[in-house]
Amino acid sequence: MQDKYFDQSKLNTVKRLPKRGAYDKASIYGVLDDHFLCHISWEDAGQPFMIPTAFGRVEDKLYIHGSSKSRMLSMLTDGRPLCLVVTHLDGLVLARSVFHHSMNYRSAVIYGHAQKVEGDEKMEALRVITEQIIPGRWEEARLPNAIEMKATMVLAIEINTASAKIRTGPPSDDAPDYDLPIWAGIVPVRKGYDVPMHDPAMKTNLPIAQSALEIVKKYQ
Amino acid sequence: MQDKYFDQSKLNTVKRLPKRGAYDKASIYGVLDDHFLCHISWEDAGQPFMIPTAFGRVEDKLYIHGSSKSRMLSMLTDGRPLCLVVTHLDGLVLARSVFHHSMNYRSAVIYGHAQKVEGDEKMEALRVITEQIIPGRWEEARLPNAIEMKATMVLAIEINTASAKIRTGPPSDDAPDYDLPIWAGIVPVRKGYDVPMHDPAMKTNLPIAQSALEIVKKYQ
Repeated sequence: MQDKYFDQSKLNTVKRLPKRGAYDKASIYGVLDDHFLCHISWEDAGQPFMIPTAFGRVEDKLYIHGSSKSRMLSMLTDGRPLCLVVTHLDGLVLARSVFHHSMNYRSAVIYGHAQKVEGDEKMEALRVITEQIIPGRWEEARLPNAIEMKATMVLAIEINTASAKIRTGPPSDDAPDYDLPIWAGIVPVRKGYDVPMHDPAMKTNLPIAQSALEIVKKYQ
Repeated sequence: MQDKYFDQSKLNTVKRLPKRGAYDKASIYGVLDDHFLCHISWEDAGQPFMIPTAFGRVEDKLYIHGSSKSRMLSMLTDGRPLCLVVTHLDGLVLARSVFHHSMNYRSAVIYGHAQKVEGDEKMEALRVITEQIIPGRWEEARLPNAIEMKATMVLAIEINTASAKIRTGPPSDDAPDYDLPIWAGIVPVRKGYDVPMHDPAMKTNLPIAQSALEIVKKYQ
């Protein structure tokens, strides 16, 4: 059985505004599963590197992929420490004072390390990543062949520690500022997708894929 | 006079899909100026760290801010190398083959270092960050007082090298796959903001701030 919490260590303890911090897997996986874009950083000879990339999650494992020739991903295959962050921006928080302006957001910070994935798990990892981006698409598209699998590198990220930081709700101003004639509130960030666009190179008049229709509907 | 291009070095050269890479300041600043959220990473004793945070740009300088007590930001004040990435997700690119699935995106990668900002530049930097998030808000809100300025740390990031990576347009499949009866196209990511929500703690019935109305209108 898996633990429900990540161990709280010096590394993953939210120091600023600790009431916004969460260490339970439900909160952290909630932030991860509602997205598919992460930023990953690591260092090489004292130089930090970072890439934005898609990911997929299964249990305590995150999968990422890229080209077999990627010098970036190759650096991670030796298991060096990495930091992975997923950030949702939910709203601009407009307070009466500039100082108390903020954002509503949900972010998860993962500390871990990666290792190369091969064989059956590699194909399954690609399915997981694809399904995290757009559920149902894996069943619609032509699956990877041997040459494409060889050209693709897949890494599994084992989570060592993790934390989530979440802010929700209206602004919080200093008491005297509530008397100021300044509007305060939230400007919510719009989520979701617009109407799918056909590839102009389509040879026949196919209806828009079910996966595309459903992901648009999901956020309507 | 400033150069129009960042020097292309080993550090900022886009190796994967080099046709997507750009090194001119117009492209890179275009990516930066269309956003206010970045991810910044650095390392400390071999451990990579990363935070999502707001930024503002003036010329070749980026400003970020946080609490004076932030152990995260404090690490950067010694000028160690940092990596800052801004990523826009513009669309899901659905190809006929799983392999050629992609995303339309614009990202900028900045390599640089930070230093603490004080005095008049500190207040100006806060104005720049606020205006990058929501233009016009600085003039509407109560400006920071001395205590608030003391509680705030501002860092200026000098750009050493930078690059942008941009993908636009429809999917690109292998020639034989165009005959497959699989729908292909783009699912555009919706941008912008929803209708502003009043702070329930407002004491009087003020109209929604002009800055909030205008940022909603900008993306409509």
